[in-house]
Amino acid sequence: MSSKAKLLSALRIVLLWTALLIPLGLSVGSLCAFFLWALKAVTDYRLSHPSILFALPIAGVGVGLLYYWCGGKAEGGNNLIIDEIHKPGGGVPLRMAPLVLLGTIISHLFGASVGREGTAVQIGGSIAGGIAKLFNLSPQSTRLLLTAGIAAGFGAVFGTPIAGAIFALEVLALGELNYAALLPVAAASIIADWVCHLWGIHHTAYHVGFQGGSAQNGSFFHTNALLFIKVCLASIAFGLVSRCFARSIQFLSSTFKKLCPLPWLRPAIGGLLTILLVEILGTRDYLGLGVTSPLPDHPSIVNFFTLHHYTWSWFFKLIFTVTALSTGFKGGEVTPLFFIGAGLGNALAPLLNVPVDLLAGIGFVSVFAGAANTPLACTFMAVELFGATNIVYYAAGCFIAYITSGHTGIYQSQIIGYPKN
Amino acid sequence: MSSKAKLLSALRIVLLWTALLIPLGLSVGSLCAFFLWALKAVTDYRLSHPSILFALPIAGVGVGLLYYWCGGKAEGGNNLIIDEIHKPGGGVPLRMAPLVLLGTIISHLFGASVGREGTAVQIGGSIAGGIAKLFNLSPQSTRLLLTAGIAAGFGAVFGTPIAGAIFALEVLALGELNYAALLPVAAASIIADWVCHLWGIHHTAYHVGFQGGSAQNGSFFHTNALLFIKVCLASIAFGLVSRCFARSIQFLSSTFKKLCPLPWLRPAIGGLLTILLVEILGTRDYLGLGVTSPLPDHPSIVNFFTLHHYTWSWFFKLIFTVTALSTGFKGGEVTPLFFIGAGLGNALAPLLNVPVDLLAGIGFVSVFAGAANTPLACTFMAVELFGATNIVYYAAGCFIAYITSGHTGIYQSQIIGYPKN
Repeated sequence: MSSKAKLLSALRIVLLWTALLIPLGLSVGSLCAFFLWALKAVTDYRLSHPSILFALPIAGVGVGLLYYWCGGKAEGGNNLIIDEIHKPGGGVPLRMAPLVLLGTIISHLFGASVGREGTAVQIGGSIAGGIAKLFNLSPQSTRLLLTAGIAAGFGAVFGTPIAGAIFALEVLALGELNYAALLPVAAASIIADWVCHLWGIHHTAYHVGFQGGSAQNGSFFHTNALLFIKVCLASIAFGLVSRCFARSIQFLSSTFKKLCPLPWLRPAIGGLLTILLVEILGTRDYLGLGVTSPLPDHPSIVNFFTLHHYTWSWFFKLIFTVTALSTGFKGGEVTPLFFIGAGLGNALAPLLNVPVDLLAGIGFVSVFAGAANTPLACTFMAVELFGATNIVYYAAGCFIAYITSGHTGIYQSQIIGYPKN
Repeated sequence: MSSKAKLLSALRIVLLWTALLIPLGLSVGSLCAFFLWALKAVTDYRLSHPSILFALPIAGVGVGLLYYWCGGKAEGGNNLIIDEIHKPGGGVPLRMAPLVLLGTIISHLFGASVGREGTAVQIGGSIAGGIAKLFNLSPQSTRLLLTAGIAAGFGAVFGTPIAGAIFALEVLALGELNYAALLPVAAASIIADWVCHLWGIHHTAYHVGFQGGSAQNGSFFHTNALLFIKVCLASIAFGLVSRCFARSIQFLSSTFKKLCPLPWLRPAIGGLLTILLVEILGTRDYLGLGVTSPLPDHPSIVNFFTLHHYTWSWFFKLIFTVTALSTGFKGGEVTPLFFIGAGLGNALAPLLNVPVDLLAGIGFVSVFAGAANTPLACTFMAVELFGATNIVYYAAGCFIAYITSGHTGIYQSQIIGYPKN
């Protein structure tokens, strides 16, 4: 090819991808903004109408029937998107977006302990699948666009565009990262996050006040060897909890499948168990997202960064979340994993004599890194949420949790690119 | 295997790698500290004795003869280390460390425009190769340790441990990243950086005052769409300059090889050309590292972050560096690439109406990302050197420069894992 023809072909590719990625980013960013707004609205409603919890089993059956009657392949969720990227088949259906949106909002309204990244990723994947069909893209381009859809949803819902981009690359295969989709994921994630901001969505700010040894020695920061060793020890615990979370969901999902072969009825069990847990423990602190708490000093992700001490909150949240997700409630795993990680960091901090905000921040990203097998995305997420100062500790936490969490992750379609040892 | 046997085997592996990585990190960190101290000493000497430049051709022949008589395989430098990781062969000789240290210090003393990462990486690789032989490691473990050696050298010499770790993983293959060495590289890089700090080494602090839209909307930062587009345009230029740099070195190296078949005599040509360039341009600003300048407002990396405008400094530095490196002076490409990138950022900032410190920072990491094909390591480097606030712009710069720089990089042994489009 002459260099003029090469330039023209490059220009054509740039224009085509601009035409694909701008509508993807705009629509995923807008839908995520709506989703976050709705999530806040239903959570506020639930908090002011506590008795709504008792309808959780019925609401769960409603979500179950919604998927049973209208779901089709959309039931596959995140795993379907990952599968379609590895091996393009029938495509990701467009109905996945409204279904998961509705299912998640109902789950949160009635108090199930679920997350939101699953919803965002499925909105992204479903819109990307729709655009790919509309433009009649080749299998290779469809793959890239689906990966960009994951990035757009993840980046917008958490307000962390670079973590979103790297997450989409990293989640596909355990132990390796391929750069084929590098520019599409970054563009989609940055545009979607930008659009989500334009709609006036404010993400929660977490505050890590600990400043390492920054600027002490004239350079940006400095690692403290003893603190570093303590962080490494705590991170082994983070990885083991990731492992426990992923295996519990896997085990309980198959157990409930055997106990109750009707998929639409299964959430009723989860709803009943959740009500039972609330009554036994005498607390509603582990329902819903758990980012903030309406009651002062009650367990919530934001409160884990304060000096208040919470010993077993991480464990109770794990029980509530595993119950909800393994019986078919919608939303995802990630925000509960943030809760579990930050809560465990808060619990371990006084034992190890580590600043509590630092260890809560490390736990926040590390338990997720271990469960999703995405250590680089989680390191970037820590930088985007908490700042650069303690990057060495965040990276150590994510890498160690990744290594110690084993090969079972929360995304079963993730292939093993390179085993962990 | 029973779970007890598994635990014992895991413990054995952890203990073995601790025994390998601690001496690696300690020795590489200490040697890098000595190297940085010596670099400052010889640069100060050169600045106070300007006529020493006229001995550069003779000094070059000295370096050439040193490698000709004692070098053997050590001549292979960074590429030999990368080759040995891909395909373990005769190992990396221990003499590589003192040779490259001496060769680089001589090159800098007499004013060659070279860097320092090559030296640090070769110190790391050579010590790692020595430890691997001492412990009689398997080929697979030797690979991991050599990768950790690269990370240790890079992390310590620039004071950026996470960038060092990711650089070592990323530089091996273009377009993909394998996590096999994730923990060893991070541990080696963090320990080496920590030891280098303990020796009292202060890394230069670069100041990017531009704060994006941080905390405006309650979240950590916010992307400005127009600024983002301008950064993307500038990053295409950064990528093209990376390409031009890598191809010029490749082309001139083979040209000089034909012109002068005696390898030890070749640096004399580079020395003479450098003196000629100094006389024609009437400036010594492009000799040596160029991180700071003894004269106020003269071109230097630190000054590119100020409001002073430098239109062609990036171009002159490119000429000086390509001349020195393609004739056999030692040190490496990276610090000159920082100079070229930050200088080009400084030159483009007023044309595009972008804050100069921001674009200098983006250029600093992006030209290097394009030339070394290491976009993730360079994004981490930006975060470690300049802070987290503008991460979206740094990542965009590094990713775009990576895509536009083509398949020719500065490390010829880098294999193509996944082609760029």
